[in-house]
Amino acid sequence: MVFWKRLFNPPSDSVPSASPSQFKGELLEVKGRADSQWRIFFSTERDIDLYELEELCDAVGWARRPLRKVKRALAYSFLVVSMWEVKGNQRRLVGFARATSDHAFNATIWDVVVHPRCQSQGLGKALMKYMIRQLRSEDISNITLFADPQVIDFYRRLGFVLDPEGIKGMFWYPD
Amino acid sequence: MVFWKRLFNPPSDSVPSASPSQFKGELLEVKGRADSQWRIFFSTERDIDLYELEELCDAVGWARRPLRKVKRALAYSFLVVSMWEVKGNQRRLVGFARATSDHAFNATIWDVVVHPRCQSQGLGKALMKYMIRQLRSEDISNITLFADPQVIDFYRRLGFVLDPEGIKGMFWYPD
Repeated sequence: MVFWKRLFNPPSDSVPSASPSQFKGELLEVKGRADSQWRIFFSTERDIDLYELEELCDAVGWARRPLRKVKRALAYSFLVVSMWEVKGNQRRLVGFARATSDHAFNATIWDVVVHPRCQSQGLGKALMKYMIRQLRSEDISNITLFADPQVIDFYRRLGFVLDPEGIKGMFWYPD
Repeated sequence: MVFWKRLFNPPSDSVPSASPSQFKGELLEVKGRADSQWRIFFSTERDIDLYELEELCDAVGWARRPLRKVKRALAYSFLVVSMWEVKGNQRRLVGFARATSDHAFNATIWDVVVHPRCQSQGLGKALMKYMIRQLRSEDISNITLFADPQVIDFYRRLGFVLDPEGIKGMFWYPD
């Protein structure tokens, strides 16, 4: 069984840490995984290969978006978190999320994605906890998102509240 | 009766326009108002007096927030819209709204407020239409907000959709 230990309070000797390939990121400590060369890292670096990100989004069936707009969205997001599978000197993008914010009160999380091959192993949960920890470290207290019906329970288990005090998410789309 | 004419397609000779007091902003054309000196202007300038904004928020009973955080939130919002009542050389802040955004796909509107004295005259609607028009002019297609129960119908009338395809607004708060 694979599980993740103390993501919110990682031991000081392991975070931040560099992979054997000097990949800059924060190591997610994995217990019970037979392959000791296998590592999961989080990064807040923004220089993500847009084609690699597109490939990840393709893998979960998202509609393609113009790369120039994706590039702009990444540049103007408050927080961009990528999740990497590292084996030896190889790394592969397996998760992603980003947040917009006013840098003071509110943040809204968008584009949460985990590669299907890496799902059901707690990595989505770990990614979201990493996001929340980063936002909290910036003193953002109101973290919001818009959840598709099939992931509402996933977010609920992470402590997200649905329609608190009757507050409703609303959308305006062009005609 | 007071009503607002063609806010989305204002006549070219009236927008943008300066008030008699050279106040920079976009004039909202008002019909049927007896007092011809009375004007409503919109502005996207960010140099709003924070105490004046606090006074407006006080008037609708909002909890006070640290001004240094409000200042930061205004600086890092994608769009800040203020609504001003102008009489002769006097101007007064009577409405406000702002939006965070990734400058590409999504925007989220926060802190929509209209002074109680100016409510029920269509000014909140005009303010929101102005916000939407500004966001659309920046090619933002996904405009979102979180609506308190008592204003859901107000936003619905402006074209906002509640929980489209079961998508739900969710909130995470610190313990």
